[in-house]
Amino acid sequence: MTKIAELGEFGLIARLTAGLPPSPDVIAGVGDDAAILDIGSNDVLVATCDVQVEDTHFRLRGITPHDIGRRALAVNLSDIAAMGARPRFALISLLVPPTLDVAVLDGIYAGLREEAAQFDVALVGGNIARNAERLIIDITLLGTGMRNRLLRRNSAKPGDMVMVTGSLGSAAAGLLVLEDEQLAAKVAPENLVGVLAAQRTPTPRVAAGQWLAQHAVTTGIDVSDGLAADISHICEASGVGVQIEAESLPIQPETASVAALAGQDPQNLALFGGEDYELLFTVSTDRAHALARELFDATGVKATAIGTICMGSAITLFREGKPSPLLSTGWDHLRLNNEMQG
Amino acid sequence: MTKIAELGEFGLIARLTAGLPPSPDVIAGVGDDAAILDIGSNDVLVATCDVQVEDTHFRLRGITPHDIGRRALAVNLSDIAAMGARPRFALISLLVPPTLDVAVLDGIYAGLREEAAQFDVALVGGNIARNAERLIIDITLLGTGMRNRLLRRNSAKPGDMVMVTGSLGSAAAGLLVLEDEQLAAKVAPENLVGVLAAQRTPTPRVAAGQWLAQHAVTTGIDVSDGLAADISHICEASGVGVQIEAESLPIQPETASVAALAGQDPQNLALFGGEDYELLFTVSTDRAHALARELFDATGVKATAIGTICMGSAITLFREGKPSPLLSTGWDHLRLNNEMQG
Repeated sequence: MTKIAELGEFGLIARLTAGLPPSPDVIAGVGDDAAILDIGSNDVLVATCDVQVEDTHFRLRGITPHDIGRRALAVNLSDIAAMGARPRFALISLLVPPTLDVAVLDGIYAGLREEAAQFDVALVGGNIARNAERLIIDITLLGTGMRNRLLRRNSAKPGDMVMVTGSLGSAAAGLLVLEDEQLAAKVAPENLVGVLAAQRTPTPRVAAGQWLAQHAVTTGIDVSDGLAADISHICEASGVGVQIEAESLPIQPETASVAALAGQDPQNLALFGGEDYELLFTVSTDRAHALARELFDATGVKATAIGTICMGSAITLFREGKPSPLLSTGWDHLRLNNEMQG
Repeated sequence: MTKIAELGEFGLIARLTAGLPPSPDVIAGVGDDAAILDIGSNDVLVATCDVQVEDTHFRLRGITPHDIGRRALAVNLSDIAAMGARPRFALISLLVPPTLDVAVLDGIYAGLREEAAQFDVALVGGNIARNAERLIIDITLLGTGMRNRLLRRNSAKPGDMVMVTGSLGSAAAGLLVLEDEQLAAKVAPENLVGVLAAQRTPTPRVAAGQWLAQHAVTTGIDVSDGLAADISHICEASGVGVQIEAESLPIQPETASVAALAGQDPQNLALFGGEDYELLFTVSTDRAHALARELFDATGVKATAIGTICMGSAITLFREGKPSPLLSTGWDHLRLNNEMQG
């Protein structure tokens, strides 16, 4: 008898979805950030669902109900952003303990509505059912995008530059202070604000994703499981390797400060922390710097070159000039008993 | 402090979704069996999500994993059928205890695949997360349908005949024998098979729903919460009343037999049991009988006239010639501690 904990999330998904029959209407099914579906119009439909489970993805005492709602929609918006699509419609499935104070759900819905309004998403349906032990929010988000102009995982080419928006590791630093009151007491207030906001209310890169897809970028993913795991998804789907430069990783000073106080390497937070919901994309080297400048001018989002796509399949980290294998050690909440799955 | 259990499912949905801003792309949002969405093509998108929670909607020892999978997709197919739309794409969200035997998930996925293949649905995505205490399957199903040719709740007119496909109460009879071994031992084996199948593997009326929508029927809903609750949804949305004839309710002999052994009134199972996943629709009286004959010829699905839409708002049951109020006492699993929510 094989237990689910032995397989982990990715092994389980691969096992359950192996050999699904092809369908002419399914342009991309299981295995990207979202499915791409042909519904007989010029635009294609992009569909994703992601769940937030109390005590796995959030704790009621570590985040306000309002921010739980914003975050639950934000992680789905990030998947639509990672396809370069436009988010449109959300269905909200709530599983709630009957003893929960309704004010908590009022707060969650207020947060959902605020995030939805900000990204022009309509809340169009869902359901509510009882779950005695914990609150669970499962969201399906539907978007639309231009056919053949979406970001996929399978089109990275050797020689491409690997780029990432914003900064990495902040959400992991935020989790460290959320989980350790003694650490939080040592962090300067202005640093605390930044890393906690990154953890509680990540900013999905919706405008940046659409801009990249409209400007001939074809490869992208969002950083939800951690840079190391997410770049490995691109490499696997594209049949390539990668070389990541540790010193190039964009890390905010407040993240470095929290990491130092916690006795952690900030580069490790950036590589393995996850939940940053930044966009990781590749682009030919000759376009990279002009593209980053234009992206910033158009959307205000900074992008940083952090490595190079290579032939082969090796996923290598260069740190202080020395190569080492960068294993796919993104957090897997089915296998590891941690709290960081996004 | 208001507890969720005090509001119930419908009260909670109304509270959380009150005053959602209108959107030009949302033809129907919260408040029908599924949302109807304009995605810029001739066809409109129809989207629904429904969840199955272990110990609320099923028990692992009362149903095989294969049938859990079939049923989880069937209840969503029924919502698409209730709109008269064509089911197309499913996203599967699994919440699983890490200690669960993977063979259980293998079985559930085999059932999901079988049901999907039968109704020409592609499984296109989803996610898996941990939930220590119980297995939960949340499914979003997307369909397409002709604009202005879908079944809604808000178009019933006084004088319309109320019709229902198939038979009622069988699923509730199945639940009675599932929950009571002594009762099950008394039921004739051939009767047991029928009511258990109705409970475990309901048949969503997908072809019948599409046929009705294509033949100018405009009002429909599926019988998931119980006939009494579901007809009240139509009356409320349409601003009408209804008179239901108890003696006209289509009830299978095996359902009557199980009800008799359990000391229950079979008409009560039909009215309040729920989970039959039949279609309840209205049609002008002069068309009703010809329509039922044509529906049967086209799809093999029988429809029975069970009442009349009336002016006003009274929801009345005529039983042995005597009227009484038919209250909206469909099962509400958030308010009542029962096991029958579909």
